[in-house]
Amino acid sequence: MHNTIIITAGGTGKRMGSELPKQFLELNQRPILMHTIQKFYDFDSSLQILVTLPSIWFNTWAELCKEHSFVLKHHVLEGGIERFDSIKEALKLASGITIGVHDGVRPLVSFTTIENVFKAAELSGAAIPVLPLIESIRHLSAKNSVAVDRNAFRNVQTPQCFEANLLKRAYEKPYQIRFTDDASVVEALGINITLVESNVENIKITYPIDLQIAELLLR
Amino acid sequence: MHNTIIITAGGTGKRMGSELPKQFLELNQRPILMHTIQKFYDFDSSLQILVTLPSIWFNTWAELCKEHSFVLKHHVLEGGIERFDSIKEALKLASGITIGVHDGVRPLVSFTTIENVFKAAELSGAAIPVLPLIESIRHLSAKNSVAVDRNAFRNVQTPQCFEANLLKRAYEKPYQIRFTDDASVVEALGINITLVESNVENIKITYPIDLQIAELLLR
Repeated sequence: MHNTIIITAGGTGKRMGSELPKQFLELNQRPILMHTIQKFYDFDSSLQILVTLPSIWFNTWAELCKEHSFVLKHHVLEGGIERFDSIKEALKLASGITIGVHDGVRPLVSFTTIENVFKAAELSGAAIPVLPLIESIRHLSAKNSVAVDRNAFRNVQTPQCFEANLLKRAYEKPYQIRFTDDASVVEALGINITLVESNVENIKITYPIDLQIAELLLR
Repeated sequence: MHNTIIITAGGTGKRMGSELPKQFLELNQRPILMHTIQKFYDFDSSLQILVTLPSIWFNTWAELCKEHSFVLKHHVLEGGIERFDSIKEALKLASGITIGVHDGVRPLVSFTTIENVFKAAELSGAAIPVLPLIESIRHLSAKNSVAVDRNAFRNVQTPQCFEANLLKRAYEKPYQIRFTDDASVVEALGINITLVESNVENIKITYPIDLQIAELLLR
């Protein structure tokens, strides 16, 4: 009885002001994506690991793996134009009973978070890791913005985990603009999503400073 | 023509797992609150600086100032039970034409952010610094949660700046539970709030790890 993790690495690096996509930037002398793959392998070496990557970066990744002697078993497949298409492709290869989908640029997810989300998904069909909001938020409208109660919201992270058949069924529906993550695709089937507490270190590496923060958190 | 900054330091330290309130925890060997006061002093030494603090911490703060030879001019006043009451008290002493309100645990606000928010408030009456949301968010309801479009939201930070008479008038109204920040108090008067881009380093020190992140950002 094995599970699958799909790791998405579709970033183009624009926000980091770097030519290399951010999943390839180095964290402690090793590309971020390797840390992320390693984390899931260390959590459960029987996991099927699928990595979605734009095909123009296949060669770069192969060279990086060689350079860093990175030999952990993982399957790289071509990311589509939309994240939705990438996941849809990955699901054709996914053989696990429970399937997680994780951002390639979140190397700091904890074993506890991974374990809790997979377990919750086994019980309920669909589970995601969340954290409370630290800062106030405002909702924008066409010509104004208004304060909303942050306690009524949660930050959503990954891995987002689902019973395999449920996730595959959800991805058979046509793409909708409101599909911003896997939970939003699955809930379009009318499924409730179980919320599980994430770890605060599980940051998404987005800005250049996040690389340094991640190095600090790795210590 | 001078301005006022009200720095709120009402934290009890519970979330940091520390006895000292977080505004007193040391960042590079100096209490966070001193960094914050210093930032505004360095930005504009003519600013009137008002600090709201629970009265049980007055002695500790006086001792810390002595110990760290911290002599920048600031006026400490007693924080009320609710943040709303603290600001209301501070406003009685505020003599500036434009008044900013800032979290004592955001020492990393940039001069650019401070300047832009004060300037925008001078033009429009009310301005706050915001950032886009990096992570997806979900809205919680009584028995479920649902994905919402993060692009329609902004993270709200400080300093929040207002034309003095407008802010004082807003704080004359009775407290409402939806008053989570100063912008929400002012917009209850039917005023539009101008949104200004904040700096990403302007974090609110909340978790123990944030202290280390702040030290990294200070370098």
